[in-house]
Amino acid sequence: MAKEGQTREPARRPGGRTARVRRRILEAAAELIARDGIGGLRYDQVADLAGVNKTSVYRNWPDRNALVVDALAAFGAEAAPLHDSGDIDADLVDFLEALAAATASPQGRALLTLVASAREDPELRAVVDEVFKRRLSMLDHRLKTAIERGELPPVESSFLAEMLTGPVQLFVTRRARAFTRADAVRVTGVVLAGIRATHSA
Amino acid sequence: MAKEGQTREPARRPGGRTARVRRRILEAAAELIARDGIGGLRYDQVADLAGVNKTSVYRNWPDRNALVVDALAAFGAEAAPLHDSGDIDADLVDFLEALAAATASPQGRALLTLVASAREDPELRAVVDEVFKRRLSMLDHRLKTAIERGELPPVESSFLAEMLTGPVQLFVTRRARAFTRADAVRVTGVVLAGIRATHSA
Repeated sequence: MAKEGQTREPARRPGGRTARVRRRILEAAAELIARDGIGGLRYDQVADLAGVNKTSVYRNWPDRNALVVDALAAFGAEAAPLHDSGDIDADLVDFLEALAAATASPQGRALLTLVASAREDPELRAVVDEVFKRRLSMLDHRLKTAIERGELPPVESSFLAEMLTGPVQLFVTRRARAFTRADAVRVTGVVLAGIRATHSA
Repeated sequence: MAKEGQTREPARRPGGRTARVRRRILEAAAELIARDGIGGLRYDQVADLAGVNKTSVYRNWPDRNALVVDALAAFGAEAAPLHDSGDIDADLVDFLEALAAATASPQGRALLTLVASAREDPELRAVVDEVFKRRLSMLDHRLKTAIERGELPPVESSFLAEMLTGPVQLFVTRRARAFTRADAVRVTGVVLAGIRATHSA
């Protein structure tokens, strides 16, 4: 668990004590969800692991499902961000490379397994669907910018997300070797060339 | 369970009493694996469900893991075959449409969940890897023919398989609506256009 003052990229993280406390709580919650499952998440353990008072957790997240959604969405956004460098091809390569690493990590694998089984449960399904929705809206925002700039023809973000991340997920869960940057370049290259060839601007 | 004389496509299935008995055993085994898991598979239950003598099962599959591999590979080949109509684009669309239906079926979902968890077990991992290898060699065979005919540039079958089936798997496990033939056409169109644009013949 990253502790205050030990974060890798302090410059990128929005400051303020409240923001830092919230981030520590979300990181602790994601770690505990990966270990104990969504149903096993306990506020007192989140507080202990985050090094904050239990009331801080309750005050920020009176609703338990909201804490789960925020924790999982924050894990995804932190582990596999989609930046805007002005070059959508390069940004998607970075995104896929980070996504593969996150998916292959013990925490990422635990969370993916748990998300897959949560979808069999009617109540938990709504929670994980909300996490996917958040992730998709992040991707959607970046794609809209690329489409406006003429870098991509108009394309649904959910379709593009499946085309890009589906192969990565299969690769990571089935192959013996690690997914490399060259693999990210290759997958992104095929999908974007295919989208540009089949969708008109 | 399909019983002798009730098969949908009798013309396509190789005849002979031995072949029919083997097929019934494999279908019964796949059904029981979906219900009880790989570890729960029992020869006497396979024999009962297939309507054959237990010695028939032992004689054909003295090795238990070989029965599991053959049953899972046969389920895949039966549920999502890749035909050769002479048109690789059309054959891949058919393949993806059938794959989506098989993945969404109760038996397909049960088998996929089980295969995912089996990969965490060192011994079972070898078994499910062998199933993927069989499926891949089927795809490889069909792709080589298409490449020889000049329908596709040279491409690794494992890469193409991930590009095509990864999006289908994500779609089926995450979306609320069913994967349609139009979706199969769209996924195949983007991937093949992308492969043709980025790989030279």
